[in-house]
Amino acid sequence: MSLTAFDSQVLGPLFTDPDTAALFTDEAMIKAMVDVEGALAAAEGACGVIPQASAAMIEKTCARARIAAHRLSEGTLSDGVPVPALVKELRSQMDADHARFLHWGATSQDISDTGLILRLKSALDLHEARLRQLADTLAGLAAAHRDTPVAARTRTQQATPTSFGLKCAVWLSAVLRHIERLPGLRARLLLLSFGGAAGNLAALGDKAMEVEAALAARLGLGLAPAPWHTMRDGLDEYAGWLSLVTGTLGKMAQDVMLMAQNEVAELRPGSGGGSSTMPNKVNPVGAEVIVALARQNAGLLATMHQAALHEHERSGSNWSIEWLTLPQMVIATGAALAAATRMASELVVRGDVMRANIEASNGLMLAEAAMFALADHMPRPEAQELVKSACKAVNETGTHLFDVLAQRCDLPVDWEALKDPARHMGASGPMIDRVLESHQALGAKS
Amino acid sequence: MSLTAFDSQVLGPLFTDPDTAALFTDEAMIKAMVDVEGALAAAEGACGVIPQASAAMIEKTCARARIAAHRLSEGTLSDGVPVPALVKELRSQMDADHARFLHWGATSQDISDTGLILRLKSALDLHEARLRQLADTLAGLAAAHRDTPVAARTRTQQATPTSFGLKCAVWLSAVLRHIERLPGLRARLLLLSFGGAAGNLAALGDKAMEVEAALAARLGLGLAPAPWHTMRDGLDEYAGWLSLVTGTLGKMAQDVMLMAQNEVAELRPGSGGGSSTMPNKVNPVGAEVIVALARQNAGLLATMHQAALHEHERSGSNWSIEWLTLPQMVIATGAALAAATRMASELVVRGDVMRANIEASNGLMLAEAAMFALADHMPRPEAQELVKSACKAVNETGTHLFDVLAQRCDLPVDWEALKDPARHMGASGPMIDRVLESHQALGAKS
Amino acid sequence: MSLTAFDSQVLGPLFTDPDTAALFTDEAMIKAMVDVEGALAAAEGACGVIPQASAAMIEKTCARARIAAHRLSEGTLSDGVPVPALVKELRSQMDADHARFLHWGATSQDISDTGLILRLKSALDLHEARLRQLADTLAGLAAAHRDTPVAARTRTQQATPTSFGLKCAVWLSAVLRHIERLPGLRARLLLLSFGGAAGNLAALGDKAMEVEAALAARLGLGLAPAPWHTMRDGLDEYAGWLSLVTGTLGKMAQDVMLMAQNEVAELRPGSGGGSSTMPNKVNPVGAEVIVALARQNAGLLATMHQAALHEHERSGSNWSIEWLTLPQMVIATGAALAAATRMASELVVRGDVMRANIEASNGLMLAEAAMFALADHMPRPEAQELVKSACKAVNETGTHLFDVLAQRCDLPVDWEALKDPARHMGASGPMIDRVLESHQALGAKS
Amino acid sequence: MSLTAFDSQVLGPLFTDPDTAALFTDEAMIKAMVDVEGALAAAEGACGVIPQASAAMIEKTCARARIAAHRLSEGTLSDGVPVPALVKELRSQMDADHARFLHWGATSQDISDTGLILRLKSALDLHEARLRQLADTLAGLAAAHRDTPVAARTRTQQATPTSFGLKCAVWLSAVLRHIERLPGLRARLLLLSFGGAAGNLAALGDKAMEVEAALAARLGLGLAPAPWHTMRDGLDEYAGWLSLVTGTLGKMAQDVMLMAQNEVAELRPGSGGGSSTMPNKVNPVGAEVIVALARQNAGLLATMHQAALHEHERSGSNWSIEWLTLPQMVIATGAALAAATRMASELVVRGDVMRANIEASNGLMLAEAAMFALADHMPRPEAQELVKSACKAVNETGTHLFDVLAQRCDLPVDWEALKDPARHMGASGPMIDRVLESHQALGAKS
Repeated sequence: MSLTAFDSQVLGPLFTDPDTAALFTDEAMIKAMVDVEGALAAAEGACGVIPQASAAMIEKTCARARIAAHRLSEGTLSDGVPVPALVKELRSQMDADHARFLHWGATSQDISDTGLILRLKSALDLHEARLRQLADTLAGLAAAHRDTPVAARTRTQQATPTSFGLKCAVWLSAVLRHIERLPGLRARLLLLSFGGAAGNLAALGDKAMEVEAALAARLGLGLAPAPWHTMRDGLDEYAGWLSLVTGTLGKMAQDVMLMAQNEVAELRPGSGGGSSTMPNKVNPVGAEVIVALARQNAGLLATMHQAALHEHERSGSNWSIEWLTLPQMVIATGAALAAATRMASELVVRGDVMRANIEASNGLMLAEAAMFALADHMPRPEAQELVKSACKAVNETGTHLFDVLAQRCDLPVDWEALKDPARHMGASGPMIDRVLESHQALGAKS
Repeated sequence: MSLTAFDSQVLGPLFTDPDTAALFTDEAMIKAMVDVEGALAAAEGACGVIPQASAAMIEKTCARARIAAHRLSEGTLSDGVPVPALVKELRSQMDADHARFLHWGATSQDISDTGLILRLKSALDLHEARLRQLADTLAGLAAAHRDTPVAARTRTQQATPTSFGLKCAVWLSAVLRHIERLPGLRARLLLLSFGGAAGNLAALGDKAMEVEAALAARLGLGLAPAPWHTMRDGLDEYAGWLSLVTGTLGKMAQDVMLMAQNEVAELRPGSGGGSSTMPNKVNPVGAEVIVALARQNAGLLATMHQAALHEHERSGSNWSIEWLTLPQMVIATGAALAAATRMASELVVRGDVMRANIEASNGLMLAEAAMFALADHMPRPEAQELVKSACKAVNETGTHLFDVLAQRCDLPVDWEALKDPARHMGASGPMIDRVLESHQALGAKS
Repeated sequence: MSLTAFDSQVLGPLFTDPDTAALFTDEAMIKAMVDVEGALAAAEGACGVIPQASAAMIEKTCARARIAAHRLSEGTLSDGVPVPALVKELRSQMDADHARFLHWGATSQDISDTGLILRLKSALDLHEARLRQLADTLAGLAAAHRDTPVAARTRTQQATPTSFGLKCAVWLSAVLRHIERLPGLRARLLLLSFGGAAGNLAALGDKAMEVEAALAARLGLGLAPAPWHTMRDGLDEYAGWLSLVTGTLGKMAQDVMLMAQNEVAELRPGSGGGSSTMPNKVNPVGAEVIVALARQNAGLLATMHQAALHEHERSGSNWSIEWLTLPQMVIATGAALAAATRMASELVVRGDVMRANIEASNGLMLAEAAMFALADHMPRPEAQELVKSACKAVNETGTHLFDVLAQRCDLPVDWEALKDPARHMGASGPMIDRVLESHQALGAKS
Repeated sequence: MSLTAFDSQVLGPLFTDPDTAALFTDEAMIKAMVDVEGALAAAEGACGVIPQASAAMIEKTCARARIAAHRLSEGTLSDGVPVPALVKELRSQMDADHARFLHWGATSQDISDTGLILRLKSALDLHEARLRQLADTLAGLAAAHRDTPVAARTRTQQATPTSFGLKCAVWLSAVLRHIERLPGLRARLLLLSFGGAAGNLAALGDKAMEVEAALAARLGLGLAPAPWHTMRDGLDEYAGWLSLVTGTLGKMAQDVMLMAQNEVAELRPGSGGGSSTMPNKVNPVGAEVIVALARQNAGLLATMHQAALHEHERSGSNWSIEWLTLPQMVIATGAALAAATRMASELVVRGDVMRANIEASNGLMLAEAAMFALADHMPRPEAQELVKSACKAVNETGTHLFDVLAQRCDLPVDWEALKDPARHMGASGPMIDRVLESHQALGAKS
């Protein structure tokens, strides 16, 4: 069907990207679960828990099984989980003698959770690659605009000049931290989920731990010291990471939108939506979508954490909440990353307008700098007073602050030279360099 | 595609119902928007804003238009909204002389928002019918179990006896309030959204208000005093109502699950999921799903309210958040209502177990009643002390509280008769009656 | 203590207002509960459930009781609710013969919930008065600026001119709806909570319903058909209303902040925070705070709805969540209303800058109007083409669109007159009038 | 004041713990900011940015400054941040010649954010110690109950036996992961916030980076490659960690509550609240509070992530949201940790009831085991059929499943021995051991 905006053929293209989406289709969900069943049989065969021949047959059947999603609809509705129907389908595709060893000792949650983790592993790889691509683009912008002055704006008001390169480096710094978070996250998330009916693998007797280790090895997953059927901190930490990522992208997109307002006009987000009635108007569609996905993720994160309170050894309701919530978050993050990378690479930076906006303040944005210049020649309180009263004159007369000051005091200050905003960007340069070094260090590690 | 649990062929049956879902397919979304375009042309023709012949042709074309969802994908991605692509498609289906009068004076948001409202109107009708059906079922249970004693449980502990009928009546009382909320909600939600590019219908000149009234009349919608392009309180109130409804259903489902625990066993939720490994186990799938949908809705509600901060005259990002969020909420509510109605009608009520659970407390649940009985014959503080020490004896000896008391004091109290929990249900009866009267009164009004 | 920003002596002034705060101090909480105990005794005395003399003594004691908050700390910690400690304190203040009739037949939740409702009643009155005051101010702005052109901005981009009065009227329209929501809300919220230990008033025997009615009458509260100990839809609807209100105020505040950006400069929010280092900078503190409170409320709303799933006849955990959440929401709403009223009344509207910003577009914002003017003299597609190519010329040459058009075609259009943005505000006037009529109608009703 | 439940003298004891609370009083907030100002002056003195004598005087003044919270109220209200008022107060406490070098080159956010980080550093130490204490207690329970059978319950229904020690080990496994998360978290959170007015430390000229390093060293904080004034991922990751912790504690508390239901009675949470009317009732107050705090934190987490979208170089509104939200989360986590540690250490484990509850199933919980036992002697499908039909007989006759099976088939199975639930706890033992090893390894590292 096409009920949600993610699945809609109309709205979906705005809020999804094909690569992430491919991990969350019914087909991908089913395939991952079938892969787990196949690996389980193989592991159990190798450990002597089920007959080798049966293991081989199950593995082969799973490898080539194609189970249509609709065949699981009815069973899922009555069981509350797709695995029993899936197992039934798979069994029907092989000889009964072997079929009875399929799913041996496992519970539905083992298959469903582990199948999810396999897909999240791919999602992490995909999204890390995108973060690295975005980081490269932002690093390029930071380097290119190391010396491009732009108005810093604090609390929605113009503050003092800074470097547009620093602005990009600041964005980049968070992107780099998201990449740095990945090894720890992977270690706690990419774990086999395997506990059997009650979480103690009772049906496997004294082979339990051996099978568990063999299965984890086959699937390339880590082992939790105890089953995490009901301890969902790994999933919830991951959900948090997703929302951290989209939060950063949302901040960046919002900055771009604010700087692309007609009255500011310092940036132009590459391609954008035309208005249906106003030919002159270019809507920042990509940036809007990123902000929307960031806020959607932030909200869904709470629901994931609400679902942490799994009761006893398995919670049908909290597990269901995860199914409703987590895939949306992964998909939203993938889409936001794709959109942000596109936005960053297509960004038109208008250094001339940035400079003009600073200059339009008639030196008011340089008041702090003026005060420091004066303070070399007079006590700071006096300098402050002088600047304060001069600022008033600027507002009243429209004369540049430095011209007012030059008139009001006779000091050996080169006011004309000081007018250049490029002289007021502070430590932007070394800060940018430091971020770029972090970026390079991170690249080397990967 | 099938990315979210709602859209999945596998999981979707758990979390959706066909009737609500039908309102949120791409086809339904497109059809509603086309209906608005058709009605707009008709209204403008009637008001002399566009030629009558063009109006007629547009109306006719819209009435029979079938626009495939995928034809809007590309345009939606670039415009950030489906309407321009939709208008283009519709125009391509009629003569250019007429086509140019399609969408006359409207903006995309007029069409998209109003199309949504038309579908929400149907959703409200559908969900009201379900609430009424659920109310009928709960009223039946309340009446049938007016005199069925059950342990009231407060703070997870057994308290004193009450009537299972009252329990149902309490659930019902909230369902009735949700129905009572509907007229006010409809009046504030089912409003035409019509403002043109800037919200002032500038393109319609002095015919603006006339067209607006005609269009609202044609669509059966109310008129807001000013366009609500960016004032989303109607939608947000509706989202709140949806979550109020699912909150009540979730409370009910959670009660059912708690009472269906093996150790309690007072209720059996009709059909339920079998376990893949435990043939003796019946999982309360329907109740679990209702709880999950309630918590999902509660979370999404916050996101809807976050999206209230539309900026200026149209907010691309906040509008997008609504698209991502609201349909899920409506669908979840529809599914929860369907599941709750089914659960209520299939509920197996085990009065014998309810009574046995009360009796298993050996009278401890009747301690309050014992004290009141004693207080007729002695000062209350003494009665309290007596009961308190008797309770200890119960815990130590396993003797019934009333037998302990009969032994310890010689008073004309018919302890045996008092053992009947049915005598300790307080005003359950009149309270049930009062709720049933509310129910009937509400039925009469509809 | 002073742990949260609301309670901090440092940050509190930003996020609270004294009038709302006064309803949520420990003293106010205790007083409301004591009032309920007093009224309960009076009602029970009148109904003959407890001795008249005891009723009178309890009422008198409650009327003059001053119970220090710290005396309830220990008891609340061990009981999980303040009422038992409160009852103990009150009992210690009167003769034991009377004291034992205090709290007769009630449960802690009866007292705590009803005490809350009494305070929410005051909060609703207070906040309604503020909404009405804000409505008056906005109505004044809407009327005063009926003919003040301002750029409408959609999707963060300039669209076409509109009236600043309409902008205010649109804000006002939602404020009016919030007032309209109040009667229904009050009817469902301002209800006595009274059910005794198990919700069936068992301890009151056949006087239960009589006492209930008398108590509700004394407290000026309505009666629910069944106790709402665990059906919290009334509270949750109220929480939703609070967030609807702050959502509207947040939207308004955000608009003000955007219009007060240095590069836009169309509004100046009255008083604002100075920067510690930039004397020239005025921060829109009030508007920022309103936005923060709106987003805080939106988030807390979800938590309130999560807490709807009270289990059985009383839920300690969900009730606790309400205590943690709802007071914050009421306080935030009060503070946001106070700040918004101040912001609206101090707003400096700079009509000249609004006009200048429109003019700075060199007619691009009037492209739609140009096309309609041309369409009187040529086919619309041709007009569209002409405007489109002229727009390009504007961007390249900086000439006004209408001058370009005047040069390119010789048509009897008074381009100079058309340059006046005041001619392009569409139906702003009648829309404003309609909102003002709603405002007056609402005033008449109150 | 005492507006929120956290600050209330009445309710506060339920929801706070003194140690965490001490970090969030006004006094603690002010002291941390004063410490930062002192360290800044010292660092700037050492780097030659301000005179040594002034640095010394400022450091000394800061070290002994006692600034009453109410003296910052007015300034905070007008500035939107407490720092300017704080600086003014501090300046008034020293000679003007020195005073002018206080706060040199810093912006309010540098002081406020860094002051917060200093307090979060203490909070992390405190909470880590509590986690370790809780881990020790849980490890003790896991070891002690390695061989205590208890019913595993899945989807609210009894499943098969497991070990209560494993249940504790599963809880413990998540607690251990929270400790493992700390080093990475600290590295990304405990960072100096220092950027000056525009985030580029412009006022410090070419000494900027030197001062920054010196200041970080003095405060024992790390350095971010670029100022994080608007990149709040560190704070948001921390908020996520807080909610992960309370989520785990909430799951544990909920399990305890479910197992302490009268009908289950396997656990008794140590001290609990008495009911005001039911002397026999013990409410699990501590567990309820933990669940409430977990859900409160989950909700607030979303608001923190919504606040990630800081605009430009400083966002007044998003910064305010953090002030409203984050301290609550830290306090809630501290309180939940204190309550959970108490709950775990006071937990009364009733192994006899656990065993009795298993036995009450008449062997139905051992159906899986029966099937495996039979499968040694017959084909599994036949074994399954046999067990299934025997289960029916159990439900009808109340005979133990193994007795039914013994009657129905003559096989060399020691059914009597198999009745012992201790024989059906699967790999509980080795799993517990593995968790305990993790615990010990973690202890060794700290």
